[in-house]
Amino acid sequence: MSNNKIKIAIAGIGTVGKGLLDLLLKYKNNETNLEISAIASRRKFKVESRKFKNTLIFADAKELIDFDDYDILVELIGGDEGVSKNIVFDALKKKKNVVTANKALVSKYWRELHSLMKKNESILKYEAAVAGGIPIIKVIDEFLVSNRIKKIYGILNGTSNFILSNMLAYDKNFKKILNDAQKLGYAESDPSFDVDGTDTAHKLSILSSLAFNYNNKTENIKNEGIQNVELQDLKIADSLGYKVKLLGLTEIEKKKVKNFVYPCLLSKDSFIAKVDGVYNAIVVESDFCKKSCFIGEGAGAHPTATSVLSDIIRLSDKRINQKKSSVFVKHKEISLESRFGSYYLRFTTDDRSGVISGIANQFKKYNISMKSMLQKESRTKSDRYATIVITTHSCFEKNMMQALDKINRLNFIRNKTVYLRIEDFK
Amino acid sequence: MSNNKIKIAIAGIGTVGKGLLDLLLKYKNNETNLEISAIASRRKFKVESRKFKNTLIFADAKELIDFDDYDILVELIGGDEGVSKNIVFDALKKKKNVVTANKALVSKYWRELHSLMKKNESILKYEAAVAGGIPIIKVIDEFLVSNRIKKIYGILNGTSNFILSNMLAYDKNFKKILNDAQKLGYAESDPSFDVDGTDTAHKLSILSSLAFNYNNKTENIKNEGIQNVELQDLKIADSLGYKVKLLGLTEIEKKKVKNFVYPCLLSKDSFIAKVDGVYNAIVVESDFCKKSCFIGEGAGAHPTATSVLSDIIRLSDKRINQKKSSVFVKHKEISLESRFGSYYLRFTTDDRSGVISGIANQFKKYNISMKSMLQKESRTKSDRYATIVITTHSCFEKNMMQALDKINRLNFIRNKTVYLRIEDFK
Repeated sequence: MSNNKIKIAIAGIGTVGKGLLDLLLKYKNNETNLEISAIASRRKFKVESRKFKNTLIFADAKELIDFDDYDILVELIGGDEGVSKNIVFDALKKKKNVVTANKALVSKYWRELHSLMKKNESILKYEAAVAGGIPIIKVIDEFLVSNRIKKIYGILNGTSNFILSNMLAYDKNFKKILNDAQKLGYAESDPSFDVDGTDTAHKLSILSSLAFNYNNKTENIKNEGIQNVELQDLKIADSLGYKVKLLGLTEIEKKKVKNFVYPCLLSKDSFIAKVDGVYNAIVVESDFCKKSCFIGEGAGAHPTATSVLSDIIRLSDKRINQKKSSVFVKHKEISLESRFGSYYLRFTTDDRSGVISGIANQFKKYNISMKSMLQKESRTKSDRYATIVITTHSCFEKNMMQALDKINRLNFIRNKTVYLRIEDFK
Repeated sequence: MSNNKIKIAIAGIGTVGKGLLDLLLKYKNNETNLEISAIASRRKFKVESRKFKNTLIFADAKELIDFDDYDILVELIGGDEGVSKNIVFDALKKKKNVVTANKALVSKYWRELHSLMKKNESILKYEAAVAGGIPIIKVIDEFLVSNRIKKIYGILNGTSNFILSNMLAYDKNFKKILNDAQKLGYAESDPSFDVDGTDTAHKLSILSSLAFNYNNKTENIKNEGIQNVELQDLKIADSLGYKVKLLGLTEIEKKKVKNFVYPCLLSKDSFIAKVDGVYNAIVVESDFCKKSCFIGEGAGAHPTATSVLSDIIRLSDKRINQKKSSVFVKHKEISLESRFGSYYLRFTTDDRSGVISGIANQFKKYNISMKSMLQKESRTKSDRYATIVITTHSCFEKNMMQALDKINRLNFIRNKTVYLRIEDFK
């Protein structure tokens, strides 16, 4: 590697490649040691920014084979053969480091790529190949490195998850939702690999090979897709307390490995049953950390590019901590008083008329509006009183506190009113 | 650092320290470049293993100040002042690297520690200080490094989460469940810091400082605990579709920071509402990755020690990829036929007598037992038929496939029987 600048050659400016350029342009404001020495793009690529003024543009990625002026090759073309394979193998042989998002290639040539790395002391990183927005490779390779992993399972294909979630949510069959997904860009025009389980099998083969230190082959993974899943089964499963998910599962027990991909029912109580839409979710079970679960967007330009850039920075960064922490900025604190949100309130009052209106009057004064109300009569042996539970629409904390202060002094209030904030993160 | 061996001095052999020794002894089988040059332990520490034959044992950690034969100090004593502070500051001044699990210290001396690091080009790592079994520091520092983080929120205290979950699950009040938690070792004899929100505030201050690059002070964080949360509110919230969680939240908007800790209601549909017991969960919202969620055990000897060891390996490892991937092992594949699990089956049959017994006879033959059954009459314009949904107890896939093959040939079966596997991960 050169002393200061790290030179990057990017092959392929499709969805992820464009996302990476977005991030790099933004990131360059903070980090100046990354330089793009070459970009290979089949489609015409506009050199819009002065940031690329020293960048060579190739129309064909195979020209990178005769090009040496880079430290890291970033392969974003895809496909398990042809030019993507050629340039990745060539770079590793040239003792260059490589970052790729190519799950088919990494899965198919796991053994060969690792031999090349060892022989040439070069490094291939592939965080983006599995679950774009989830750093699962880093978690297995760097965080759980001292643990023995027993089992990995999860939702690894966003397209399938989108289809299954939306069939149920919109009461439509597979074909209709697939159609919607294609219109929204969540499914390819040929969605076979996504819906038949192949894509999940590719990713599972990588996770399994990495976690269990062997050479797993996608062909060995028995996989079933979601093409034949019927709406009525999603509905019945729902009524029985389950969600249907396309699951990838790899597990090791006594040196024997299970590798399955199939649609299955998951109890609604499990962490991943709630993971809907294009989200991915991966659970790792290990001897020392027991169960860990990671949820994030599975694909898309920017989450995947985040993975790619994280690998690039890891390869180019000799400092372990990021520079940014050495200079602090100042931020203003926002007080709790200015919180704008909704509330759960429980009033304990006399059981008589005028109570609700007494509360409602104070609400009106402080611009608080009710969302729901529940009233029940309660009794002790000697006494009768009322419990009123109110949830509100959003209001300012300051107003709520003032209103409660006033309400608590009203003569029908028996105990200090209980309040809890409601957080809505959706 | 020495050329090959990385020497580690460990201060404090409490719960986490013991967990670390477990992992180190196990890990040493694979990695031989780590050497424990010193252990400081107030309690008598038995040198049981020949692995420690070159290890100096100190009865008082302050003796480490006059000791220099280490590359990495691992501080596991705790407390924001006294000996832990002295040895950490001393090590950084000596240009040594430090790994700590001490949230109080890191939170309180964020600015001073970062100045020392910068001045001495030494590194302090603190993955274990926040959510033991979740690599959240790594995620923010290395994975989301190119993203702008907008908001971080989550369940950061396992003790409080255990209490809130179990109050509802076992219909007991705060005091009784706290008592249970203390007996089980999930709460300290003095649980104040856990239940009053202080511990959550410490962790939130670290996450906030790191994500938003400033110096957050625990004292600035408005925090409320769970001491006064009543069982009846958990129940009413549950009936309204919410779970009550002790939440830490930090958010930046237009250079203004929100930092709150309080118990609040979360919709059961949110990722983290399902996170019960001693588990922690953290959601990070960023510009490019949108929403990421990380779930794992928050404390405990082994998850926390996993974080400590991951930091140690990061600091000691000049190779980026782990050695283990260069030699592959062989594993036997387990066939799907040998899967042992339960099934969801939907039969479409004639609407006449003898159907159930026909199915049940085949089940008996193949050792399959029913768990639930649901039957409904269905009709088309010209026809009447029956839909029967059966879930089973666990059986072998091979048996199920043979039984279904037989059943599908029975004369009352209208369509090929639909089956889906049920996975139970709890």
